[in-house]
Amino acid sequence: MRSARSLSPARAHGVPASLRTGEGTRFTKGHGTFNDFVLLDDPEGRLDLTPEAVRGLADRRGGIGGDGVIRVVRTRAAGVDAPAGAPEWFMDYRNADGTLAEMCGNGVRVFGAFLDRAGRMPEGAALPIWTRAGLRTLEILRRPSEDGAAWQVRVGMGPARIGGTRRTVTVRGPHQQPMDLPTLDVDLGNPHAAAMLPPEVDLEALDLESRPDLVPFPEAGTNIELVSLRGERHAAMRVFERGVGETLSCGTGTVAAAVAAAAASRDDSGLPWRIDVPGGSVVIGWESDGTTTLTGPAELVADGVLLP
Amino acid sequence: MRSARSLSPARAHGVPASLRTGEGTRFTKGHGTFNDFVLLDDPEGRLDLTPEAVRGLADRRGGIGGDGVIRVVRTRAAGVDAPAGAPEWFMDYRNADGTLAEMCGNGVRVFGAFLDRAGRMPEGAALPIWTRAGLRTLEILRRPSEDGAAWQVRVGMGPARIGGTRRTVTVRGPHQQPMDLPTLDVDLGNPHAAAMLPPEVDLEALDLESRPDLVPFPEAGTNIELVSLRGERHAAMRVFERGVGETLSCGTGTVAAAVAAAAASRDDSGLPWRIDVPGGSVVIGWESDGTTTLTGPAELVADGVLLP
Repeated sequence: MRSARSLSPARAHGVPASLRTGEGTRFTKGHGTFNDFVLLDDPEGRLDLTPEAVRGLADRRGGIGGDGVIRVVRTRAAGVDAPAGAPEWFMDYRNADGTLAEMCGNGVRVFGAFLDRAGRMPEGAALPIWTRAGLRTLEILRRPSEDGAAWQVRVGMGPARIGGTRRTVTVRGPHQQPMDLPTLDVDLGNPHAAAMLPPEVDLEALDLESRPDLVPFPEAGTNIELVSLRGERHAAMRVFERGVGETLSCGTGTVAAAVAAAAASRDDSGLPWRIDVPGGSVVIGWESDGTTTLTGPAELVADGVLLP
Repeated sequence: MRSARSLSPARAHGVPASLRTGEGTRFTKGHGTFNDFVLLDDPEGRLDLTPEAVRGLADRRGGIGGDGVIRVVRTRAAGVDAPAGAPEWFMDYRNADGTLAEMCGNGVRVFGAFLDRAGRMPEGAALPIWTRAGLRTLEILRRPSEDGAAWQVRVGMGPARIGGTRRTVTVRGPHQQPMDLPTLDVDLGNPHAAAMLPPEVDLEALDLESRPDLVPFPEAGTNIELVSLRGERHAAMRVFERGVGETLSCGTGTVAAAVAAAAASRDDSGLPWRIDVPGGSVVIGWESDGTTTLTGPAELVADGVLLP
């Protein structure tokens, strides 16, 4: 984490002056299964959230630090295309490198916890929100209590579309011969290729330092999930995220892993699956209309203000 | 930065409940040449700063994130051995892994900026402080201004003791044969071995993914600096920190680099040296009594409060 190589000169900057003026920009830091975010409360869309500002905020040494930045903004003030009657709140998600992203399955739960704390979530009902991937829904299943437990948030993730392309991924462990495994393409607004590991392969021992070979490799890239059955409707996964590398958690990836595990187990019960990731556990469910839900923890760690 | 391998299960925790009670613990995030810290204002020594709490605060995803944690505490309330008449303020420095450390040349400048903002620094004079390495002095040379510049803080670093052991370090670049270079042992409360690179070796291209071979290797370990002359009393360095790996900056390491570079250049002028590190630049000076000073930037990035 302290390697100089992990911080290129282009990222060695602090928070830009545009966010450090006046009384200081307020922020909240939070995480879902240790995928972490800087949240900015900007209901009326007044912040000038340039890519440079996002990189500065997400910078782990010169800024606050996070895998992404989430602006909490009213859809009408967000400067995005949205249909008439779109939900009130927009999740404006940015990657740490300043680029836009359609969706983040862990970030959207933290977005839900943030809205809930601000009194913007309805009691006992789901709240539709708008994202760059379209409509999503959020429901608070549990609030933090004095035992230090986190929020539990259920997210309506929309349909999981299974693709028909046959691909093969090659996995390697420290003392194992390379092994070729078939993958399942799953589209959740972003692309995934999920492979089931045979029982004799140790998930924890796999080498994910670099991207596993995937053939044919999709032109737009893909996230790659390696999934190991653990029990009845229970699997564990590791993920190599497109453009990033191995991460502790990928929300949409857990949905893809559950889809692949249910298919491999010929499970059409419609009952939920538990998916373990290095950063924790989530539950994937199926609605009667075939769409998926992702339920997992969300934590708000700190509130703060950027210093001038 | 998002690699799962960089976050072992033991670090995948949030801030412990002991710091998340009542009105919430206040903190400040700051950095010196991108060596970053979580600062806690605890003048009367009331915080229960366990190793677990330090690890939780320093955790970059579940906590606030930092290379270390600095408690700002009065010496008499710090629970440390200090002589009668020791300075009022104690820099209680902890590594991100929860262990104690004697000194941190970058952290002590951020400690100075924090004291200055709190109105605890005298005008135009040096303030003695107490550390686990003994007495140090801090002087504010510049305060932040509207142009976004940082504090400039001069630290009295005490004597730099040159050792007599002959050692050889082996450096490697991507297209270079391994090269053996002599090192100079420099003790600044913590141990350093600094090697001057010949002009034809490209500092930026050296491989510091793993610790360079150093023979004989000191039993207690050492920080290793690779130093390249840049001009008159101007050098650049990279550092492999004991127990950590390559870092963007190491405050005591810059002093060791300046000592080695001045010795190699047969510079006994007593004039200051500029030392460039990947995270910025600092200036090393010599006092008339032979002790050293380290002058460099310190930034306070954000104030915050841990959420219950």
